[in-house]
Amino acid sequence: MRVIGIAGAGAWGTALANAAALAGNDVVLWMRDPDQATTLTATRTNERFLPGVRLHGRIRFTADLPDLADTQAVLLVTPAQTTREMTAALAAVLPAQTPLVLCAKGIERGSNAFLSDIVTEVRPGAPLAILSGPSFAHDVARGLPTAVTLACENGALAEDIATALSGSTFRVYHITDVRGVEIGGAAKNVLAIACGAVVGRGLGESAKAALVARGFAELLRFARAYGGQAETLMGLSGLGDLVLTCSSAQSRNFAFGMRLGQGLSPQEAAGGKLVEGAATASALTALARARHVDMPIAEAVEQILNGAWTLDQAVDTLMNRPIRSEH
Amino acid sequence: MRVIGIAGAGAWGTALANAAALAGNDVVLWMRDPDQATTLTATRTNERFLPGVRLHGRIRFTADLPDLADTQAVLLVTPAQTTREMTAALAAVLPAQTPLVLCAKGIERGSNAFLSDIVTEVRPGAPLAILSGPSFAHDVARGLPTAVTLACENGALAEDIATALSGSTFRVYHITDVRGVEIGGAAKNVLAIACGAVVGRGLGESAKAALVARGFAELLRFARAYGGQAETLMGLSGLGDLVLTCSSAQSRNFAFGMRLGQGLSPQEAAGGKLVEGAATASALTALARARHVDMPIAEAVEQILNGAWTLDQAVDTLMNRPIRSEH
Repeated sequence: MRVIGIAGAGAWGTALANAAALAGNDVVLWMRDPDQATTLTATRTNERFLPGVRLHGRIRFTADLPDLADTQAVLLVTPAQTTREMTAALAAVLPAQTPLVLCAKGIERGSNAFLSDIVTEVRPGAPLAILSGPSFAHDVARGLPTAVTLACENGALAEDIATALSGSTFRVYHITDVRGVEIGGAAKNVLAIACGAVVGRGLGESAKAALVARGFAELLRFARAYGGQAETLMGLSGLGDLVLTCSSAQSRNFAFGMRLGQGLSPQEAAGGKLVEGAATASALTALARARHVDMPIAEAVEQILNGAWTLDQAVDTLMNRPIRSEH
Repeated sequence: MRVIGIAGAGAWGTALANAAALAGNDVVLWMRDPDQATTLTATRTNERFLPGVRLHGRIRFTADLPDLADTQAVLLVTPAQTTREMTAALAAVLPAQTPLVLCAKGIERGSNAFLSDIVTEVRPGAPLAILSGPSFAHDVARGLPTAVTLACENGALAEDIATALSGSTFRVYHITDVRGVEIGGAAKNVLAIACGAVVGRGLGESAKAALVARGFAELLRFARAYGGQAETLMGLSGLGDLVLTCSSAQSRNFAFGMRLGQGLSPQEAAGGKLVEGAATASALTALARARHVDMPIAEAVEQILNGAWTLDQAVDTLMNRPIRSEH
């Protein structure tokens, strides 16, 4: 590759722009707000989302979407629930052969559609990849070692993009299982809310670890029902990301769960911010029910969020199940 | 059950004694030191290993091994490397039909034998179970919700012991895959050292999460080669315990790894204490090599501990592998 386009200049988009530039690419980083683009061009830092990180000289900042037209691949790093709208906007300016790399994690509300299916619907026949894995934006931006997964059904293209984005500290592994990667990314945010709630309520690390193991089993069952490969779920984008998201208040979903555990309502806990796992919970559980996948932890999260269960009811339901065979 | 015997009054043995008593059993807790037994009887607390926890009135403390003879099952909660000696001592006083429940985690140094094989060798034909899972002694002792796995090839006996030990907060699930449970328990201590080293060296949470995912893949490969079931490794005693051990300085193995990461030598980092993962690393990697199982993380731990690699060499080897397909 030579030129990588990135749509979205939040913490993760900005960190990816820096990583792509460090890997030797020219980068065009698009954001919606022209004032922000002017500021970033002048200061070469993103003080709002990635404070203290000097942005690489090979990054060009823009608020004009057509500036992405001459790139060899575009990474879409806007919130999951904007994927349909953003893909349509990009389809209007990108050549049909430009690969789009989905970097958001979630399932569309209302339609219950996987993000890759939305992109295929809006931009049929165009190459599509997905990037996911355990990676805090600040870790990537600080040059700490990070390993993520890029999936594309076209294996050669997967390898091509992965190689273009990889540097000495940001390592991108490639696979072809798009569905497996997006299932792991979407479901782990919901499970992270449950883990946060357990920790916020003071139930301890042992209870959280049990929940991660049982949550991972839910994730595997869901993937089996929807065509993801177990091997993918056991990798960086599944287990790796689940472990990271469930282990740190740096994760927005985990932090939201912690506030639920401390007794705040879902509205108070969100504090006006988008919590991807909360947006995905209803879609995930609806899809699970449609194919008879048993997901008690995701279901408990959904019941708390829609007001049907109190936190105590949810915890009792999860913790006091009958003693039985583990398998 | 009615009477449960417990051999070993460290933090975990004492916490298990309390849990078993809370579950409605009479408990006989054996320790080597008669003075300690006298003190515990007088104070009903184990200030050295489990400070601040009031021990249940149904626990009787003793330093006489024959006092365990009239129990319906004995939990062996002494360090892994003492398993052969302790099993022989117990075999001399227990009826042949009394089940022994192994609660230590590791592989015997020198012989490279799994603990269950040692017990079968020393006490052939006697019933054997194994208890493992994500459970800090202090969480169990404080009554926080905890879920663990008990494995016994005799499924009815597994259910029987699991039910006897389960209370409202300490939940014991049962399975029949003894080998899978002991592999998870032994290998996770070695991987926890690697995770601790990465954190101690300041490489961040993303790197640690990647290491957990890749370490879990090693664990699965090892289990496949040695007859453990993948499903077991994905459960509480495998993944659950791995996540817990790799997430907290409460874990002795993780804390040891952190000190290695901060630049201490293995001797300095151990500080004269037994670190089970360090004792197990050479046996685990020898077994892996014998069946051609690729375990680069466990191997890196072993090479640091035996002085062949510096920490930097190990980290470079793990982090700078060629970009390739993840599977």
